[in-house]
Amino acid sequence: MNILFIGDIVGRAGRRAVRTFLKDLIKDYKLDFVIANGENSAGGFGITKKVAEELYGYGIDFFTMGNHTWDNKDIFKFIDEDPKLIRPLNFPDNNPGRGWQTIEINSTKLTVVNLIGQVYMQGVDSPYHKFMKLYPEIEDSDIILVDFHAEATGEKMAFARAVDGLVTAVIGTHTHVQTNDAQIFPEGTAYITDVGLTGAVDSILGMKPDKMIEKMKNSLPVRYEVGTGRVKIEACLIKTDDQNNSVKQIMEIKKNNL
Amino acid sequence: MNILFIGDIVGRAGRRAVRTFLKDLIKDYKLDFVIANGENSAGGFGITKKVAEELYGYGIDFFTMGNHTWDNKDIFKFIDEDPKLIRPLNFPDNNPGRGWQTIEINSTKLTVVNLIGQVYMQGVDSPYHKFMKLYPEIEDSDIILVDFHAEATGEKMAFARAVDGLVTAVIGTHTHVQTNDAQIFPEGTAYITDVGLTGAVDSILGMKPDKMIEKMKNSLPVRYEVGTGRVKIEACLIKTDDQNNSVKQIMEIKKNNL
Amino acid sequence: MNILFIGDIVGRAGRRAVRTFLKDLIKDYKLDFVIANGENSAGGFGITKKVAEELYGYGIDFFTMGNHTWDNKDIFKFIDEDPKLIRPLNFPDNNPGRGWQTIEINSTKLTVVNLIGQVYMQGVDSPYHKFMKLYPEIEDSDIILVDFHAEATGEKMAFARAVDGLVTAVIGTHTHVQTNDAQIFPEGTAYITDVGLTGAVDSILGMKPDKMIEKMKNSLPVRYEVGTGRVKIEACLIKTDDQNNSVKQIMEIKKNNL
Amino acid sequence: MNILFIGDIVGRAGRRAVRTFLKDLIKDYKLDFVIANGENSAGGFGITKKVAEELYGYGIDFFTMGNHTWDNKDIFKFIDEDPKLIRPLNFPDNNPGRGWQTIEINSTKLTVVNLIGQVYMQGVDSPYHKFMKLYPEIEDSDIILVDFHAEATGEKMAFARAVDGLVTAVIGTHTHVQTNDAQIFPEGTAYITDVGLTGAVDSILGMKPDKMIEKMKNSLPVRYEVGTGRVKIEACLIKTDDQNNSVKQIMEIKKNNL
Ligand SMILES: [Fe+2]
Ligand SMILES: [Fe+2]
Ligand SMILES: [Fe+2]
Ligand SMILES: [Fe+2]
Ligand SMILES: [Fe+2]
Ligand SMILES: [Fe+2]
Ligand SMILES: [Fe+2]
Ligand SMILES: [Fe+2]
Repeated sequence: MNILFIGDIVGRAGRRAVRTFLKDLIKDYKLDFVIANGENSAGGFGITKKVAEELYGYGIDFFTMGNHTWDNKDIFKFIDEDPKLIRPLNFPDNNPGRGWQTIEINSTKLTVVNLIGQVYMQGVDSPYHKFMKLYPEIEDSDIILVDFHAEATGEKMAFARAVDGLVTAVIGTHTHVQTNDAQIFPEGTAYITDVGLTGAVDSILGMKPDKMIEKMKNSLPVRYEVGTGRVKIEACLIKTDDQNNSVKQIMEIKKNNL
Repeated sequence: MNILFIGDIVGRAGRRAVRTFLKDLIKDYKLDFVIANGENSAGGFGITKKVAEELYGYGIDFFTMGNHTWDNKDIFKFIDEDPKLIRPLNFPDNNPGRGWQTIEINSTKLTVVNLIGQVYMQGVDSPYHKFMKLYPEIEDSDIILVDFHAEATGEKMAFARAVDGLVTAVIGTHTHVQTNDAQIFPEGTAYITDVGLTGAVDSILGMKPDKMIEKMKNSLPVRYEVGTGRVKIEACLIKTDDQNNSVKQIMEIKKNNL
Repeated sequence: MNILFIGDIVGRAGRRAVRTFLKDLIKDYKLDFVIANGENSAGGFGITKKVAEELYGYGIDFFTMGNHTWDNKDIFKFIDEDPKLIRPLNFPDNNPGRGWQTIEINSTKLTVVNLIGQVYMQGVDSPYHKFMKLYPEIEDSDIILVDFHAEATGEKMAFARAVDGLVTAVIGTHTHVQTNDAQIFPEGTAYITDVGLTGAVDSILGMKPDKMIEKMKNSLPVRYEVGTGRVKIEACLIKTDDQNNSVKQIMEIKKNNL
Repeated sequence: MNILFIGDIVGRAGRRAVRTFLKDLIKDYKLDFVIANGENSAGGFGITKKVAEELYGYGIDFFTMGNHTWDNKDIFKFIDEDPKLIRPLNFPDNNPGRGWQTIEINSTKLTVVNLIGQVYMQGVDSPYHKFMKLYPEIEDSDIILVDFHAEATGEKMAFARAVDGLVTAVIGTHTHVQTNDAQIFPEGTAYITDVGLTGAVDSILGMKPDKMIEKMKNSLPVRYEVGTGRVKIEACLIKTDDQNNSVKQIMEIKKNNL
């Protein structure tokens, strides 16, 4: 099976990048399943039903979220109904939505789990323990993909090594910068520290540089705006063996327009 | 001029990586100057005179540091004498050592500046303002290289964009994971969010995985140990034009042994 | 001289507390000068010209601020003109407003300095170094009062001990809970870790409890609202000797209505 | 019933304070039960069996802990055997020790629960949810006391208001500065934001001022030492009704020697 995981889609520019590049990626890599982190897809902050549907239309099959899950209140209206969007599992249990989902794709049982780190993030439970408590319920899946949304490289990698062999892949999100370390760990779990950014090329984390630079210079509050102009998609490809569902390859993907 | 910037060297394994790979890199890329971040070079925590001299012997010309600068007290004995080692400029002014240094290489005036981020780092001044205050003093350098040692991708990139055109390169360090975003910004400054790790391949940030995994599982205090086995060097190459000192190229470099 | 320092005034309820209690406090304690922390006086977030003027009308002579300084954009319109309102000195130098002010009261030269802590606060310079650099300029003041706006008790106390003997008083603000430790340090500087909250009694930090409790239960974003009902003023009284300006007394003050 | 809760005991000076003052407090206030936070009782960092036994000998009946629980490895040897010492309940479940304990005192069933905040503390689960999950098991206790060990005033108060009416008292610890806000909330739960410090008077948080001041001035690593000289005990008294176990009074207590 060929799975694409797309890094945080930021605003209109990010959606344009998906529209521009995804169709070809689906064809070129014979993709069976496309996941994306959608926490910044609506104006940089959160997601709306309209934006989600626009992106489903471009070929995205599933969304994970992160610390920006609740930024746009529209999500409260549809998260409990949308079977293709999850939020971090280790958010408080009484939060709307779910933290994992099992999907059937050509008779392969695929489970996606969304987790968020605890380092520099407040109000969330242990991602490791929350995951291990869930594990017996999803263990019989053919493929398990984890979006681990976190700031600290060490926390991402420690989690991935802690579940090495239990899951198909741990894909890091949140920093909006793709890392150069896609690899398969000793027990077979595929890993990348951060899959990157889908949005404006001339940007800082997808937002217009000017306001971020201004903030660096004076620490005053600013209203960030989504970047414009050329766009890029950053993602990673995970290829699994159709016989035994083991990972055959994980590879960074990056496409710019000119 | 061909400059190599080597990512955080972690412990004995990191020094072995330098010994294993640097000689060939110097030859292959006709390197004129080799800088490395040395904050973890002695047992993972800080640097000692002995370790610095071992690494100078392998071909490193200059060291920058970071949040681990003072972890090994040996540094207090030699930092004020060693002209080839600097610590973050935006540490308190009364700290030992210096935050920048100008070196003459084949009649090219090269200045190295070391800065540390403020996000998730305490007790340090504004890197931007500290740098801009220094700038008039170093402005006439042919080449200015900045090691920006920080956690948050946004802070690194915002600083680099804020000084785009004023310096030759801003090289990020600290996360121990190489990013896939080496680029030249609109005004000509070369940039990479993080140059990566020089140390054990089978490790988490250069340290043995078992203790980091244990910590993930139980949050109890652990004593980290430097990783062993296969080693890698992660770095980036900056090529400048010998006529006008503009950047011609910035490129990630990564070498493993088998 | 009798000086009153009033803890963070939170919203309409806080202003009502000032209106209710200050006139009597001025009379009862023969106050010569009344300072208040105003960072939450407009709806809980920042300050406006209108709110400042209302509070000057109740007898407040001077305002200090904190991390909420810029929350209400109205401040940008008047901070450079208002000689009675300062913001933290260790904000970036290019920020609007000033970090200290000298006032003449009955031929006594009184200087107020506003500082903010670095622990858990980002984008600010060292309060100690920024203060020591200013010190020669204000040293000849008869009385020096510092509002140290910070989260961590240790940082507040360490600063105060570091400047013990150089200033009349270091008054902590920001936690909105009055501490029970008003004291005079060995070299004569008066100190309290936090002077407290001026606002609604039935509140959490001045805001309605329901939203704060909801946040504790589900970590979802909430819009805080200023508390209502009974109000209190929390402050401290600093009495200085009219001959030599040394501190004679520092005392917590707390008044509720019924 | 008369219960005394003693604030964080810091090192030898703190133990001397307990020895000096506790016997009289027990007599004067007819104390039935004495709890103390012991996380700093051994040299400022953690607790040992020897230190715990010394303090039991002075009249302490029970210990709670906090972020320094594991600082001294001696605790691993006895925490699972000692029925009078608990650590935060919302530490990972696989940690040694327990997070709550029920004790029978004169046929009154008293439960002590230890929680730790999530704000600025990493690797811990939600204190609210962990507590609410435990609640059915302890609900039939006559008295429930919670030590909420946390930095942020808002988190402490929000938790206490969230469980107002469910527990007898929520006592804040960790900041080592007593607050001036002991009160009974609308539904009957007694509360204080921080009960304070038991240790050296001439200290910063119980440690010698010189090293803390040095750290403020230069941000270099220092080895803190327990303060010496005069000592104080800070605590609070909770009086419950022997008929219905409701809180009759909560009162700050503070004693210095001269
Ligand atoms: Fe994101
Ligand atoms: Fe995020
Ligand atoms: Fe490092
Ligand atoms: Fe570092
Ligand atoms: Fe405030
Ligand atoms: Fe504040
Ligand atoms: Fe403590
Ligand atoms: Fe603590």
